[in-house]
Amino acid sequence: MHKPLDPDFAARVRASFHNQPAMALIGAAMPVIEPGYTEIHLPYRAEITQQHGYIHGGVVGMIADSAAGYAANTLTSADTGVLTVEYKLNLLAPAEGQLLIAEGSVVRYGRTLIVTQAEVFAVKDGKKTLCALMQQTIMALHGKKEKSEVK
Amino acid sequence: MHKPLDPDFAARVRASFHNQPAMALIGAAMPVIEPGYTEIHLPYRAEITQQHGYIHGGVVGMIADSAAGYAANTLTSADTGVLTVEYKLNLLAPAEGQLLIAEGSVVRYGRTLIVTQAEVFAVKDGKKTLCALMQQTIMALHGKKEKSEVK
Amino acid sequence: MHKPLDPDFAARVRASFHNQPAMALIGAAMPVIEPGYTEIHLPYRAEITQQHGYIHGGVVGMIADSAAGYAANTLTSADTGVLTVEYKLNLLAPAEGQLLIAEGSVVRYGRTLIVTQAEVFAVKDGKKTLCALMQQTIMALHGKKEKSEVK
Amino acid sequence: MHKPLDPDFAARVRASFHNQPAMALIGAAMPVIEPGYTEIHLPYRAEITQQHGYIHGGVVGMIADSAAGYAANTLTSADTGVLTVEYKLNLLAPAEGQLLIAEGSVVRYGRTLIVTQAEVFAVKDGKKTLCALMQQTIMALHGKKEKSEVK
Repeated sequence: MHKPLDPDFAARVRASFHNQPAMALIGAAMPVIEPGYTEIHLPYRAEITQQHGYIHGGVVGMIADSAAGYAANTLTSADTGVLTVEYKLNLLAPAEGQLLIAEGSVVRYGRTLIVTQAEVFAVKDGKKTLCALMQQTIMALHGKKEKSEVK
Repeated sequence: MHKPLDPDFAARVRASFHNQPAMALIGAAMPVIEPGYTEIHLPYRAEITQQHGYIHGGVVGMIADSAAGYAANTLTSADTGVLTVEYKLNLLAPAEGQLLIAEGSVVRYGRTLIVTQAEVFAVKDGKKTLCALMQQTIMALHGKKEKSEVK
Repeated sequence: MHKPLDPDFAARVRASFHNQPAMALIGAAMPVIEPGYTEIHLPYRAEITQQHGYIHGGVVGMIADSAAGYAANTLTSADTGVLTVEYKLNLLAPAEGQLLIAEGSVVRYGRTLIVTQAEVFAVKDGKKTLCALMQQTIMALHGKKEKSEVK
Repeated sequence: MHKPLDPDFAARVRASFHNQPAMALIGAAMPVIEPGYTEIHLPYRAEITQQHGYIHGGVVGMIADSAAGYAANTLTSADTGVLTVEYKLNLLAPAEGQLLIAEGSVVRYGRTLIVTQAEVFAVKDGKKTLCALMQQTIMALHGKKEKSEVK
């Protein structure tokens, strides 16, 4: 459905993801990168839990935000950075299981603003349960202006 | 302004915070716990940054979510847990500096639902800049039902 | 997919909708009421526009909020009211055309909280364009407590 | 605190508001227009209520959205239009009383994006109660591009 402007979008997005120490800290990987869509996979580890042993809601938000932001980034030109303007996340069920999968996708692509969604699933004993739903606004920063603040 | 139901709210909230491995993983502390208000402080570390060296937006969301959730928890009875129903976060400026401070506060306290806000500031060379703003809905789980999912 | 608790959900929801003077004021109708799903149709009228002749964004929000809230209400028991806790709406394109259609649906049904979504489409010369996307939290008020505030 | 770029911001915003038929339809007025701040006042009328006699939540959203959007517009140059990108609204209490007051204010002004907030109060028998809280993202459309869609 979405046509990427940059034929090398997957390599570019993968490189950017691997450049984020915070994603390495929590143990997240990005095994799926398609036009307008990415998946972040996060295996359970005790270090990322909250007081009841579930994966921390803030960590759920981190991978939802990143998966959807990178989904937007797959569609931009090679010299365009992306910035999260805002997002809204509903937590629907505890993030309980062996693996979290955040599926980010582009809802509407615009030159300046890109609207995205993410669903986060918890995989427990082979069963996939929707545990979070996010709606997000991304800003495209043309000409490698990735470091700029929202202006 | 807010009157806590539990005189030992500060010790209770501090213990819960220290029970979250994810907060230790990123290096967060909670030095301020008042009725209807908490602060999470997060010093800069390379491990929590994104590709441009700023603290990761997802980490900013984590401490905003937690500070406001615990602000709600200061006002509940001792046997009542809290759960994040949802939040909406605007990122206003890069999280750049030596320290982040997330200030969570209760806007409206209800028996079942508690509405909160958080502001996250980046402290750089002594200057405090607002870098994120969050609005959040918290659910109170009476009778230690902290482990339950949203029902 | 969703099973309604009340066999007469459609008549009940229709009656409630017709009891809202604000929906009559803007000229909205609810021709589709299914389990976990409703549609509000709103024909163009000059009275509901903004300064450029499009239907007002606030009116778009009104029908998104109502369609999704009533989608939740289709699944509750007959003596349970619903209340909008909060919603987040992205406006994606101008509401331009002869008709708006708000499609509200339930994402997750819980006893106390129900998470919903709405899409609003503008129909212009036979073409349907997505113009708004909403994510919402609804509270169920058991025992006809529809008049109560959020507590 | 905020310095308007356009010395005639108040007259410009007032004219735009009076150009919105939807605001006239519900009976809204904008008696206060300051730099980075506006108020919309909405007297009770049976036509704008829901089934329990309170002012409809969708109408509360309309005036919150508009008050904050116009607060952003007070700070732009004369030839710059504004567009609501998205907003998130928590309904805190029923909109019950003789008058609603929506107070919109700018949190962060940027060249492209402006982040705002709104509080809506219900005035009943002389008592002012907070009934809604909104956080919003506004886009500035430079060069009178008010009619454009989000791009």
